[in-house]
Amino acid sequence: MAQVKFGVIGHKGRMGQALEQAITEAGHVMQIGVDAGGNLGPLASQCDVLVDFSAPDALPANLGAAKVAGKPIVVGTTGLGEEHFVMLAQAAKAVPVLQSGNFSLGVTLMAHLVREAAARLGPEWDIEVLEMHHRMKVDAPSGTAKLLGEAAAAARGIKLSDAMDSGRHGMTGARREGAIGFATLRGGTVAGEHSVIFAGPEERLTISHSAENRMIFARGAVKAAEWLTGQPAGRYTMNDVLGL
Amino acid sequence: MAQVKFGVIGHKGRMGQALEQAITEAGHVMQIGVDAGGNLGPLASQCDVLVDFSAPDALPANLGAAKVAGKPIVVGTTGLGEEHFVMLAQAAKAVPVLQSGNFSLGVTLMAHLVREAAARLGPEWDIEVLEMHHRMKVDAPSGTAKLLGEAAAAARGIKLSDAMDSGRHGMTGARREGAIGFATLRGGTVAGEHSVIFAGPEERLTISHSAENRMIFARGAVKAAEWLTGQPAGRYTMNDVLGL
Amino acid sequence: MAQVKFGVIGHKGRMGQALEQAITEAGHVMQIGVDAGGNLGPLASQCDVLVDFSAPDALPANLGAAKVAGKPIVVGTTGLGEEHFVMLAQAAKAVPVLQSGNFSLGVTLMAHLVREAAARLGPEWDIEVLEMHHRMKVDAPSGTAKLLGEAAAAARGIKLSDAMDSGRHGMTGARREGAIGFATLRGGTVAGEHSVIFAGPEERLTISHSAENRMIFARGAVKAAEWLTGQPAGRYTMNDVLGL
Amino acid sequence: MAQVKFGVIGHKGRMGQALEQAITEAGHVMQIGVDAGGNLGPLASQCDVLVDFSAPDALPANLGAAKVAGKPIVVGTTGLGEEHFVMLAQAAKAVPVLQSGNFSLGVTLMAHLVREAAARLGPEWDIEVLEMHHRMKVDAPSGTAKLLGEAAAAARGIKLSDAMDSGRHGMTGARREGAIGFATLRGGTVAGEHSVIFAGPEERLTISHSAENRMIFARGAVKAAEWLTGQPAGRYTMNDVLGL
Repeated sequence: MAQVKFGVIGHKGRMGQALEQAITEAGHVMQIGVDAGGNLGPLASQCDVLVDFSAPDALPANLGAAKVAGKPIVVGTTGLGEEHFVMLAQAAKAVPVLQSGNFSLGVTLMAHLVREAAARLGPEWDIEVLEMHHRMKVDAPSGTAKLLGEAAAAARGIKLSDAMDSGRHGMTGARREGAIGFATLRGGTVAGEHSVIFAGPEERLTISHSAENRMIFARGAVKAAEWLTGQPAGRYTMNDVLGL
Repeated sequence: MAQVKFGVIGHKGRMGQALEQAITEAGHVMQIGVDAGGNLGPLASQCDVLVDFSAPDALPANLGAAKVAGKPIVVGTTGLGEEHFVMLAQAAKAVPVLQSGNFSLGVTLMAHLVREAAARLGPEWDIEVLEMHHRMKVDAPSGTAKLLGEAAAAARGIKLSDAMDSGRHGMTGARREGAIGFATLRGGTVAGEHSVIFAGPEERLTISHSAENRMIFARGAVKAAEWLTGQPAGRYTMNDVLGL
Repeated sequence: MAQVKFGVIGHKGRMGQALEQAITEAGHVMQIGVDAGGNLGPLASQCDVLVDFSAPDALPANLGAAKVAGKPIVVGTTGLGEEHFVMLAQAAKAVPVLQSGNFSLGVTLMAHLVREAAARLGPEWDIEVLEMHHRMKVDAPSGTAKLLGEAAAAARGIKLSDAMDSGRHGMTGARREGAIGFATLRGGTVAGEHSVIFAGPEERLTISHSAENRMIFARGAVKAAEWLTGQPAGRYTMNDVLGL
Repeated sequence: MAQVKFGVIGHKGRMGQALEQAITEAGHVMQIGVDAGGNLGPLASQCDVLVDFSAPDALPANLGAAKVAGKPIVVGTTGLGEEHFVMLAQAAKAVPVLQSGNFSLGVTLMAHLVREAAARLGPEWDIEVLEMHHRMKVDAPSGTAKLLGEAAAAARGIKLSDAMDSGRHGMTGARREGAIGFATLRGGTVAGEHSVIFAGPEERLTISHSAENRMIFARGAVKAAEWLTGQPAGRYTMNDVLGL
């Protein structure tokens, strides 16, 4: 693969460090040049692909820079809302845009398997999503858990926001028909574990993913960026990268 | 073992049915005679041991009948509060009283192992309790999950009510130092699964229990009642039955 | 669903008892009339569908009876060899024939998910099959474990017999490229648990199934027989019943 | 803690690299000076404690160097036989000797819990040991799996060599009464996972350990070496370091 120049936005966090390592490992180059005023123009014009792991508020500026420079952009920022997804769709008319809550191959395939199972198992199979992360994580459930819940909801033709049952505590009553339950574990240094449980009458089917460390997410983002550099304008997901 | 006459209070629920089967399997006799006015006197006087899986409100009358008749009593009612534990201690001055939230051998031993582990692992090992039960269960976390959390809290010299972190959802912030977390899964026909996870720096120790069906709880209660018939007045737990 | 008359061959074992319960639950009728000489003719002519959970040696006679009477036949016998599969294909020219090593909905879907995953994950993802059954089981790995291994092998375009690595012990050397590993646990009263593990570079994807008791297999066989009564002659699998 | 000079034997493998990192992290110094002829004398005389992760064949020379220099020695070499344990006991008369198959806090505590459980659960609870490691591991089951099996065997008053049932494949027959079963999984980059399963009548108790990476073993060995420098001659284990 030809060497790619990565313009990384949000390079200071833990994910930025992991990205730097993954970019170097893959024989590419990482560029981080943003001037004092935060002008992304030079970075966007010099790189082959932008990679954004910053914050939801910075999304408009980042997408704008991609459009002005005509460069593809990979977005891994978490905590995006409806308005951000509208912006992503808008930008995708001009440049290739790939956004994901999880760049690992395993989780992307897992979401595919969850869709398959949820579509084929009837309503007597209850769906539960379990996740565990390290003690420093500040939100629950994880973005990946929601991504998996959305895969299940889509396959059943419902909206996750209607079906989500998270944070059970106290007198909950019996399980609501059609609910998608979420349970959250926190502790130690766990990089990320997710399970989707289909609990039917006297049998259970479970699909699980376990990440040994954060590097797999960074390597997946690098792979996504490599792939995106050759694509026409459009809105892409990890499914496209992996041919799912 | 000599045949024992069981006076079962609360014999109509699912647990009552399981108890009847377990009593019969063990070669004992089940008696359920309460007259129209709810008078427990005849039942208590004719049996060798009372077994109470009814409701917290009925506890005073049930303990009273045991004391009047001078009979041992096994209490498996869940949802007991502070006031009920005072009553149990009071009754135990007159007759043998054994109360437990879970009569299985496996869970009783599990609580013992949790105490051992919690006492020996330092505060850098986070403690999480995970449980899964069938879709009809109405409260969360389960009584057994709380029993396990209490075992961990006692071993660390803290109160579970201070440390309990149950029902995580939304912006929770980083994990609180010393917290004991709880997560609840509901679905299908799962008889009962519990895990206590000790998540330390880059390693994890987990103790898990899985019940294949409800009969193990009934059989444990029968074993407890058999054991209790030979004891002097006092307050007992499953640890005493199992010699832990 | 109209009442179906089941002609059950091999009705005396544990599976026969479970079948009887499942047939009755579903509102159908079980017939077991084989005369002293073992003549299956009357049974085959009086039933709507034959169900065979007997032994490999009895397969020719059982298929013969189905053909003579022109009745569909469900075969759940385990331990079949190449020669039996030839017979099944032969009989399927005359009558509907459905054979499976596992009739649970969950395992059938699991095999489908295993194919999906094995086809999409490259050779750097090692495949392992783990199973646990009760202490009385006499063979290892289980028929269901092999069925899952075959699903994985087929998706990778290899033969399971070439790739199978079962019974590791001693100086095994490093894992063979492309191997499909099997590990077997035995103990207690476990009805049946299977996991297929895809172990990749720093991440793992696992698909698991757990049966709470043997009834799910019997109920699946009843569902398969109901479905088969309406089909033309041909060779069917649980995938057809479930529309996978 | 005062700075300790570590004389590391077998510093070239992956464990040697992990050790170097762990020693540096803890503020200590690593020495690796062995001259061309393999003379350990200078290394042993200049260090505070020897750490041996080399090979069984090198054990006599390593213990000899420790004795001559009067230095404590930590032995983490795997694959030791009866003859090596005799040598360790012999050397322990002259200097402090600590040998272990696993230096993690979690596994050491796990072995303690396994002893507790095995001693209290009767023979109707079958014991199984499951382990998973990366694809490069050449022996099965792992040294740690054997260590856990030995803990269980000791608690039941039997010899592991008599009870061990490893590598099940084919027509095994029903589970042998009192057996301790072993099953081995290999794949990917898994650092090390172990479970001991107690499978009883209709319930199961499982104790599991998961290592996120190899560093925990190196850090445990450093902690053991720190502790050993202050002890009199004798044979020690990780239980002594952890006060179990």
